[in-house]
This record gives sequence, structure tokens and C-alpha cells, in this order.
Amino acid sequence: MRKEMARLIELDREQSLVGHIEAVLGWDQETYMPVKAIEERSEQIAFLEGIVHEKRVASEIGDLLSSLGSSAENPMGDSSLLPEERAYLRVLRRSYDQETKLPADLVMDLARTVSLAQAAWAEARAKSDFPAFAPYLEKMIELSKRKAACLGPGKPPYDVLLDLYEPGSTEASVGAVFASLRGELVSLLEKIRARPQVDDSFLSRPCDAARQAAISQWMMDVLSFDKGAGRLDTVEHPFTTTLGERDVRITTRYLDDAFASSLFSTIHESGHALYELGIEPPNAFRRTKLAEAASMAVHESQSRLWENMIGRSASFWTPLYPRLQELSGDALRGVSSERFVKAINKVEPSLIRTEADEVTYGLHIILRFELESDFMAGRLAVKDIPAAWNEKMSSFLGVTPPDDRRGCLQDIHWSQGYIGYFPSYALGNLYAAQFWDTMQSELSGLDTKIASGDLAPVLSWLRKHVHKDGAAWLPGEIVQRATGEALDARHYVKYLNAKYSKVYGF
Amino acid sequence: MRKEMARLIELDREQSLVGHIEAVLGWDQETYMPVKAIEERSEQIAFLEGIVHEKRVASEIGDLLSSLGSSAENPMGDSSLLPEERAYLRVLRRSYDQETKLPADLVMDLARTVSLAQAAWAEARAKSDFPAFAPYLEKMIELSKRKAACLGPGKPPYDVLLDLYEPGSTEASVGAVFASLRGELVSLLEKIRARPQVDDSFLSRPCDAARQAAISQWMMDVLSFDKGAGRLDTVEHPFTTTLGERDVRITTRYLDDAFASSLFSTIHESGHALYELGIEPPNAFRRTKLAEAASMAVHESQSRLWENMIGRSASFWTPLYPRLQELSGDALRGVSSERFVKAINKVEPSLIRTEADEVTYGLHIILRFELESDFMAGRLAVKDIPAAWNEKMSSFLGVTPPDDRRGCLQDIHWSQGYIGYFPSYALGNLYAAQFWDTMQSELSGLDTKIASGDLAPVLSWLRKHVHKDGAAWLPGEIVQRATGEALDARHYVKYLNAKYSKVYGF
Repeated sequence: MRKEMARLIELDREQSLVGHIEAVLGWDQETYMPVKAIEERSEQIAFLEGIVHEKRVASEIGDLLSSLGSSAENPMGDSSLLPEERAYLRVLRRSYDQETKLPADLVMDLARTVSLAQAAWAEARAKSDFPAFAPYLEKMIELSKRKAACLGPGKPPYDVLLDLYEPGSTEASVGAVFASLRGELVSLLEKIRARPQVDDSFLSRPCDAARQAAISQWMMDVLSFDKGAGRLDTVEHPFTTTLGERDVRITTRYLDDAFASSLFSTIHESGHALYELGIEPPNAFRRTKLAEAASMAVHESQSRLWENMIGRSASFWTPLYPRLQELSGDALRGVSSERFVKAINKVEPSLIRTEADEVTYGLHIILRFELESDFMAGRLAVKDIPAAWNEKMSSFLGVTPPDDRRGCLQDIHWSQGYIGYFPSYALGNLYAAQFWDTMQSELSGLDTKIASGDLAPVLSWLRKHVHKDGAAWLPGEIVQRATGEALDARHYVKYLNAKYSKVYGF
Repeated sequence: MRKEMARLIELDREQSLVGHIEAVLGWDQETYMPVKAIEERSEQIAFLEGIVHEKRVASEIGDLLSSLGSSAENPMGDSSLLPEERAYLRVLRRSYDQETKLPADLVMDLARTVSLAQAAWAEARAKSDFPAFAPYLEKMIELSKRKAACLGPGKPPYDVLLDLYEPGSTEASVGAVFASLRGELVSLLEKIRARPQVDDSFLSRPCDAARQAAISQWMMDVLSFDKGAGRLDTVEHPFTTTLGERDVRITTRYLDDAFASSLFSTIHESGHALYELGIEPPNAFRRTKLAEAASMAVHESQSRLWENMIGRSASFWTPLYPRLQELSGDALRGVSSERFVKAINKVEPSLIRTEADEVTYGLHIILRFELESDFMAGRLAVKDIPAAWNEKMSSFLGVTPPDDRRGCLQDIHWSQGYIGYFPSYALGNLYAAQFWDTMQSELSGLDTKIASGDLAPVLSWLRKHVHKDGAAWLPGEIVQRATGEALDARHYVKYLNAKYSKVYGF
């Protein structure tokens, strides 16, 4: 290995180490930290942020990248390098440019605006007062355009923002996939709404935290979560975080009258953790940016695949349901496995994205994508967002928000400057379905194996085709290599139709 | 404030911040970290150690200290400075000199020797093979002498080592106190041994972890532990650690057949935490070395005072015992408060220091102090330590170790280079008794208040006389100011005689 490459790895590993230290502090803050500790904890995290920022923008990195032939035009560097070295340079070039291309005054302006906009958003949401938030959103859009101009001069701003969260994606690529998906989801939803609703009333039977904790621990074992390299704790809003190469922590919360909530959040977060723990780059690249996830959408594909495709399937519960009944006390007494599986797949249009099911979730996202696309291109004025939002809600989902609190003010993202982030959520579902479809064709009798309690083939397939190489491939490349074709919404549509025609009987 | 002072505070605060971040990582490692995370965690801690070391030895600190008039001869600096500024300079001068006076080759030699000696000690202890450990101890003694020569040129080496752990103490000062204590403890022990042993068999009745946890949480409330600024978790070996100015975490462990163990460890660690949380320096000195504990022995005085003087007293349990009976299930059924208080004060000579009671503990320490004094002065060869140890055990405690594993190989300290550390443990008890005696004379009716459940006067007295000023005073100064006289073992002797004449009826 050339000494410049070795030095790059050394510098990168220090960033990873400090990032993981920050993650320890963040995890503790969310799980166990006493309330009065917050003041100094913020300073501790800011101190580490300062160190890691300094390390990220070090000009030495730029020099080393150049000396290895990596540039904006040729990010992978000299063709004489090994494939993994070239993949690594592409990852580093991308992150180094993102860190260094923004002028300091823009960075400060963004930080200040985020801080003000978030506060304004919280107040506006509480009062359902969009006009109070509008000027902040306008400013945020303007700054996002300036940011895009710095990061991708000459490119359409929304393309640059989308690529920031989902490397390699563009408005055209995402738009094409979403366009074919939208009609399918709307028509599937119509079919479902024409049928009698499933009964899920027993899911709100009481089940105490201790029982739910036992269910979660059991579920982690079912999914082969390595408890020597991770653990489960409770928080207000469940998440997964990586505190070290062999230290991935998941979280959940226990609501006495909604035990299925912790069950599926544990499966979801375990899916994230299995991805993190399944990344196995060549030894030389351990603990570098090559050993990180390929993207947020690929991450979401793993959590959704385990939660929805596997965790909400009849096959999965065939061998496991009796044990779940036992562990959940009286909650599932007298409820058959079939009724349980129907209940956990209930579809119901709702106003709030985070509460949406598999069918309607995509529509919430497509709505946001279309609005972002319009206001970034100047086709939609900020003041007209509420009307546009409500119109799309009505047209896609058949429900109309009674106020902006439950409409266009529901998400924090825009106030944080995350314009272009929403599509990742839906792309995760689409990737998952395409992986799932391919896996089923490649692994004969997979459904029978799952129904006999053998999940090993699923994990092996995912490790080999998705987890192992970390960030060595772009998301689009991962999909192409794993499934033999580009992303196509038809896999998701096929999956949804197959499942819901059974659940709702049409 | 002079700008040099402000800059010193700024530099010091960064060290404190990084130290607290290290404490978060250390706490997590002992409480929740999954096993496979240890490799990277060690690197995370080493990375922070590197940062903090660099900050501690920065020559800028030396320059600033000098510019404020602080030197080895005049550590407190210019007489025109405020009292708290002068106290602060003394603390900083001391720590800066300790960090910078050792040559790099000695530091490395010490680190290497500690690593080898600890491994050798662990193996030697397992095999009860002192000769296998002897060469490492010889090397450690030699290096400790070199270290002492660097830190205190011209001073007796053992004085320098003692001062390292208990600022201001010398072999003569400690020796004088211990000499008067030794005979008193031996003769008290003889009186106790002449009496029938108390019955503590019910303390090993089963009590599950959940009940013990409830007892510990209740006890923290009884002691006014601020749960907004700390918490309790479980570990293998209980400790207290400070993760932030308002974040002090204590730990315990639950043994099913020894519920009193977690009860008193919780009181003990709460005592440490109350000290840490009670330090209130002038605002300008928050989060500096002035806001740290005065010494390890002063710290131990706080844990012991709460655990032993208060927590093992009849008055303390008068209002609390019924609730303890309730919380402990069947463990204390049919046991009177009187029998309980006798049982938790049982005295029995034993071989192991960490299992010793209030009467014999001091003798274990005096034994170690006398041996350290002898081998540091060359009066005792390392090979003769086992015989000397056993002879003193027999003479002080009337028991003789059957092997060195339960004799001179029982403690890890010497293998870690902590020669001169043991006396702190006993000094803590002596300080505690002297504070306790003074508090009782000053606060009329204190015992009655405690017996009515009012512990506030105790905490107020300790905050005012011990906690508040942190490290502004040397331990000897704290004792003098709080009690009006120098440290004197008679307070401890008086306390023990008063208590044990009741418990054992002589």
C-alpha cells in the first residue's frame, strides 16, 4: 500500500474514533444521563465536534487525495490502485469535498438559521400557524440553494441536495421511480378501502414493560443479534447508534397498551444493527469510511426488510407465534396467528407520516418530494405550501388535514435544513422489496425455511449482497449488483399487492 | 481577574472536560458496554488520555504559573492575588509539577513495569507464589525511589510518595497518628473477642435484586442524593465516578444472600457523591481543579462517615427500620431493630483487608504502612515481606494467613506502583471520626434529630466545613479549620469504644 493511502487511513480512523466517542456520549444522553448533566454534556459534545471538524477539513487530506490522483472529475484516483483503494478514495473525496467546499460564512449562516428556524417551527407547529414559519423556510430554501451551488456548481440545486443524502440519486431518477409508484399505491389503497377493515383491537390489550422487554430480548436472539456486540435500552424515540466497530446499540420504548410497537421497533432497529455489524471491509480499511453504511436509504432498506417483509409475514410467525403468546401474558389470549398477522398489517390512511403503514407511507413521501421539487425550482411559493399539501393529501390519501399542525408543519426536517432527505425513507422500502424479491428467486424454498424458523439464509444473503462491502459501492450500484437491474418500483408494488390481497381478501 | 489567571482557568477547564468525557467512557465500560467492544473502547480512552496528557504538560501552563508568581517555593503566587486565586495556584502548581517533573524515560519505564508487574502479580497471587512476584516488586520500589527523587529532590522518598496521595502528609505525621491508634485498636479487639459473638445469620437470608434495588433507591432519597444530578447502576466492584459538574454516578451490586452489602455500599458511594456534588467554588473556578476533592482520604472520610458513623448507628435506623423491613421482604421478619444494628456492626478479625470491619480495618492498613516504611527505607528486604506480613497479622489481629494469596499478595496496589496509597484509607476513617465528634459537639441534639429522621444538619455541616471549598485547602488544613485541631486518632478511638462497648456489652 502506498504510504499516502496508509496515512489517509490513519487520519480517517482518528475521525471514526472521535465519532464513536461522541456516539457514546449521545447514547448516554438519551438513555441514562441525569437531567441536570445536560449543560456540561453539550459542551463535551461540542468539544469533540470541534476536534473532529478540525480533523475532517485538514488540508493534509486534500493533499493526500490529490497525490493519489483523486479529483472532482476522477474521484477514484490512479487506475493502478486496487479496487478497494479506488472505492475508498471515492468515499473520501466525496466527504472531504462536502466538508470543505462551503465557505465559512455560509456554514455559520446555515447554523444560525437552523437554530432560529427550528425554534420558529416548534412554536408555529404548536399554534398551527404556517405564516409564522414561512419566512424561516424561505431563508432556508435560499441558503440550501447557495449550498447546492457551492457543492455542485452548475448542477440543478435539488439534484445536489438529493445526492447529499442518497449518493448518485437525481430528481429525474427518483422522480421516475416515484411516478410509477404513486398510481399503484393510490389504486391499491382504493382496493383496500373498499374492503372491511381488519380487527386489531387486541393489540391495545395491556402488556407490561417487563413482558415487552422479554419479548424484545427474545426477538433479538431470533434475529441473531450478537449481544456481545450490542444491546437494547429504552428511550423516548427509538434509534440505533454505533459506539464502536463491535458496539452497536439499539433502543425501544414500552407502551403498556401497545406491545406490538416495541416488538416491531426492536425488529426494525435490529435490522439497522445487523447491517452495521455485518460490514466487513478488507482489514486495511476497518474503522474507516469504507466501513460505514452506503447510505441512509440502504440502511432503511435493512430495517424495513426485517420489520415488514420478514417481521410482518405469516411465515415468520408460524414457528414463533406460540412463544409470543406465552411471553405477552394475556394480550394474545384467544387470538389466532392468522388474526395477529392481519392486525399487524392493518392499512389506514392517516394524517401523520410517522404513523403511516406500508401502503400509505410511500404516498406521504412522494407528496413531500413533489413539493420540494416544486419549491426548489420556484414553481411553488412558500406561502402556497399549505394549500398544495392539503390538495395532495386529499388526492393521494383521501384525507385532508384539519390544520397545518397535522399537515405541512408536522415534520422537523425542513427547519433543520434537510431538504432532499425525505425520499430516502421511501427508497429504503423500494430497495428492501427489490432485495427481497431477488432473494426469494435465488434461494429456493426460502419461505418454507422461514416458516420452519430458519432465518440464516436471509441474513447470509444480505451480508453478502448488501452489508459486507459497506460504502464501497453507491446505493444504485449495490442494487444493480445484488439484483441484476436498476431500482424499479414494480418489486415493491408486487410485494404489497401479494400481501394485502391476502390480508384484505381481494 | 488578571488575564493570565483567566487563561489558566480556560486551559484547566479543557482538561476537566476531557477528563469527564473519559469518565463517561469508563462508566459505560463498567456498566453496560457489550464485551466485544473492549478493544476499540481501550483505543478511545487512550486517545482521550493522549489529548489530556498533552494539555496537562503544556509549557504555557508553566509560563502562566510563573507569570503569576507561583514557584516551587512559593506555589500560591503573588500576595496581591485573591485568596481563592492563591489557593488555586497552589493546586495547579502541584499538579503541573507532578505531570512535568518526571523524565520521559522514567514514565515509560514505570508504565512498562506496571504492566508487567500487574500480570506477574495476578499469576503469583493465583499460585500463592510470592518469589515469582518479588523481582517485579523490587523493580517497582527502585522506580518509586527514582520517581520520588524527581518529584521531591532531597526529601525522604516515602514522604514524597505519601504526599502524592495525601497532600501535606509525611511518614512522621502519619506514623505518629498510627502509632497511637495501633495499641488502642488491638486492645479494643481483645475486649470484643472476649465477649460472645453477635448473631448476624439473618443477613444472609435471601433477598432478590429487585428488592435490593428498591432499598438502594430509597436510601439515596433518605440521604438527599439529587437524582437529577446522578444515578445508581450495577457493577462487579462498586465505585463512584464524576461524569460532569452535575453528573455523579454511583454503583452497587446485588448479592441474593447478602442484601446488607448493597445497602451499605449504596450509602458509602452516596457519601462520595454527596461530596462531589457539594463542592461549590467561586463561580470563576467552577469546573477547575479547585472544584475537585481535596484528597482521596477526605473523599473516604465522607463515604465512611455516612456508611459507618451514620448508617450503622441505632439512631439512624430508629425511624427507618420499619420501612427497611417492608422493602426487604422476609429477610428481616422477626428481627428487631436492636438485633439488626448489632449484626451490621459485627467485628471479626479476618485475613482480607477489603472484607474487614471498622475495628480491624485500621490494623490492616497500619501493617501495610509499617511494611512500606521499612522496605522504602531499606530496613526490610523484599524477600522477607511474607514473614513480616504474617508476623504482624498474628500480632495485630491474632490470625495468620495460611498462604501469601491471602496474605501479602492480596492487594493489587504495589504492582500498580501505588506505594504510599494505603494510609489514605485509614486516614479517611480518622478524619470522619474527628468531623463526627466535632459535629456532635457543635450541633446540639444531633442524635435526637437523626433519630427523628432529620439528616439535614449533618449534610449542612459537611457541606460547609468539608465539601464547599473543594481543593482550596490541604486535608490537614480542612481538619484544622473544621475541628479546631490537628488530626488526632483519639476521636476515632472514642467513637469505636462508645459504639462497641454497647454492641458487645463491656
